[in-house]
Amino acid sequence: MPDAYLIGAGQSDFGSFPDESYRSLFATAYENALESVSNELRPEQIDEAYVGTLGVGGRQLGLSGPAVTEHVGLDGVPCTRVENACAAGGFAVRQAVMAVRAGMADVVLAGGFEVMTDASSEAIRYWLGVSGETEWERLSGTTFAGVYAQMARAHMDAYGTTREQLSRIAVKNHHNGAKNDHAHLQFECSLEDAQSASIVADPLTLYHCCPTTDGAACALIASEDVVDAYTDSEPIRVAGVGAASDAIGLFQRETYTGIPASRQAATEAYTMAGVDPDDLDLAEVHDCFAIAELLAYEDLGLCERGESGPFVETGATELDGEIPVNTSGGLKSKGHPIGATGTGQVVEVFEQLSGRAGNRQIENPQYALTHNVGGSGGAAVVHVFERDGPRDEGEKQTEEST
Amino acid sequence: MPDAYLIGAGQSDFGSFPDESYRSLFATAYENALESVSNELRPEQIDEAYVGTLGVGGRQLGLSGPAVTEHVGLDGVPCTRVENACAAGGFAVRQAVMAVRAGMADVVLAGGFEVMTDASSEAIRYWLGVSGETEWERLSGTTFAGVYAQMARAHMDAYGTTREQLSRIAVKNHHNGAKNDHAHLQFECSLEDAQSASIVADPLTLYHCCPTTDGAACALIASEDVVDAYTDSEPIRVAGVGAASDAIGLFQRETYTGIPASRQAATEAYTMAGVDPDDLDLAEVHDCFAIAELLAYEDLGLCERGESGPFVETGATELDGEIPVNTSGGLKSKGHPIGATGTGQVVEVFEQLSGRAGNRQIENPQYALTHNVGGSGGAAVVHVFERDGPRDEGEKQTEEST
Repeated sequence: MPDAYLIGAGQSDFGSFPDESYRSLFATAYENALESVSNELRPEQIDEAYVGTLGVGGRQLGLSGPAVTEHVGLDGVPCTRVENACAAGGFAVRQAVMAVRAGMADVVLAGGFEVMTDASSEAIRYWLGVSGETEWERLSGTTFAGVYAQMARAHMDAYGTTREQLSRIAVKNHHNGAKNDHAHLQFECSLEDAQSASIVADPLTLYHCCPTTDGAACALIASEDVVDAYTDSEPIRVAGVGAASDAIGLFQRETYTGIPASRQAATEAYTMAGVDPDDLDLAEVHDCFAIAELLAYEDLGLCERGESGPFVETGATELDGEIPVNTSGGLKSKGHPIGATGTGQVVEVFEQLSGRAGNRQIENPQYALTHNVGGSGGAAVVHVFERDGPRDEGEKQTEEST
Repeated sequence: MPDAYLIGAGQSDFGSFPDESYRSLFATAYENALESVSNELRPEQIDEAYVGTLGVGGRQLGLSGPAVTEHVGLDGVPCTRVENACAAGGFAVRQAVMAVRAGMADVVLAGGFEVMTDASSEAIRYWLGVSGETEWERLSGTTFAGVYAQMARAHMDAYGTTREQLSRIAVKNHHNGAKNDHAHLQFECSLEDAQSASIVADPLTLYHCCPTTDGAACALIASEDVVDAYTDSEPIRVAGVGAASDAIGLFQRETYTGIPASRQAATEAYTMAGVDPDDLDLAEVHDCFAIAELLAYEDLGLCERGESGPFVETGATELDGEIPVNTSGGLKSKGHPIGATGTGQVVEVFEQLSGRAGNRQIENPQYALTHNVGGSGGAAVVHVFERDGPRDEGEKQTEEST
């Protein structure tokens, strides 16, 4: 099968945009993705498209894929909407990789979008609630903050994790997001801010929860058969892909202190890529709530089970740490426009691996991971990206030891 | 790339089932699909799943793929919801084929479901309306019957197509559906019935419109690397796949007298399969309204542009005709549970090509086509299936001349 390469990625700003539509946001992301390709990619060279969206607001629930590809002039190009709740965008990328590997497309657009900020709080509860389990969670009044609060409480009980450790996620991700022009909440947050904010669902405070955000993001995936036409000397290979599903209701899951689908997806992606977590230079993980980032550290193997609290305290996942996590600001600060989140993670990885990440650039990264979760763990998808090109053997280790 | 094979398919009954849920209907379809495999397929041998649904009713709009695969015990298996309005199921099959060709799965479940009959007429108008163009069609009061009525009127104006020719579609499809135990409307309809029924959207009468239906259907796709383990001597190959998108609003389309996405998808599928329309032994086409089946004849190349009215009068598409179309009863009589329709078409093809279609069995068919349309033509997907095994050269011609 031909390998898949990431040849471009771009996004709209993430934020609250009452004057934009889902189509206009998507068009901005699409145009930025096209412009990011090293050598010119013309729209007529795109063979296929996948679009992730939950459809918050119910405007265009059917054919919402073709609705946006038509808007940017890709009539005729087969476009399929992909949905796995908050992981819709990540699964769109996975389908793009599959289309290339299947020999059914040379260049594939994977996009995602969501418009959320025009909805009432009640509507948002419905539209996010329909990604949880309906009968026993949503209709009994459980919100997503409530579900993740249960996971946080379970982790605290099992491993002694503290609210301050949760708050460190907020501090770190706001610090990174303040450096990202595309982020929704571009401001720093102190440990005191995070600790003293009002409780949303105990133990989670406001700063332990991601915002409601509008936005769109697109990635361009190409076959190795054509990649040389579009990229310069250091193409970015999609080295590993992994995905898994699980019971969609937390109460039916085997554990509250981890997300089995994340672990399964990561194991598959690492195996396909032939890498270990130690090889990673950065990771964009699904931090819809602060506890979710701690769970991700463990599920992705960045630290041992139960050790994520102490791990974040070491600073290892900060911008200048051993394995920077959510350099973009993550869902917490960059924002979480549901369908756009997974493709937005790929935008950050593209910018980091191609050296375009500005004042949040990691030095000479080679391996990057994206991790996108649907619901509270009903689905998860992980990608490992590898920048080809020169890097000395053991360079990562050398950097770490300095 | 390894070829993809259809190793099994099964469905629930299509109809109105107030005592069933989307999960129970899906479970029935899944179990019937498993049982249809010649040699035993165990659930743990399924590597991947795609599920098509529009989500009518808004019960479980997020993670509705994993919601059903979890219910049948496929926890862990990555499941992705695929949506392209009424073509969701057909696109789920296409993704299953792609996963196999990409070498990322050996056995893939492609399913679809919809529960519609518990919704009010107003709710159905909303839920179908969101598959049309929102701003200029749905919100201005256009229904799907209205959109297809415009296509019918345009075809009448351009080619002299008559309402009686539309009615012949209803008569034929009800005749077939009356022989199908799974069909929603298992009764014959006379030409007089169809002609004299009340007008839904001029020129379409009630019998020119498909019903609102509950149901689920599943297909099992396997790689050529493993197909011999599951099938007997005559495996069914997915010989061709084609898909296309287009403007989702009819008013933005280049023509009202054809569906360009259907034509594009069919051309691609024929080319990949190396066959012509003349090679087909049967076709399941998207007859959401009677005019849609006439347009399909032309778009799929079964007859010339503008000739579908006279063509249906020849009887060529009847059960004993040259190229039987909608032997299952089609959307008109078998029913149209949105997300299940495309996979339901594959069930019929599986039964016909494996000689299990009972009193509607076509004699010794080798090539069969499925054609599934999203909205009024915003998306279309076509598959060509080929039964391996003995068939004399020119046999189709011989049969026709007898």
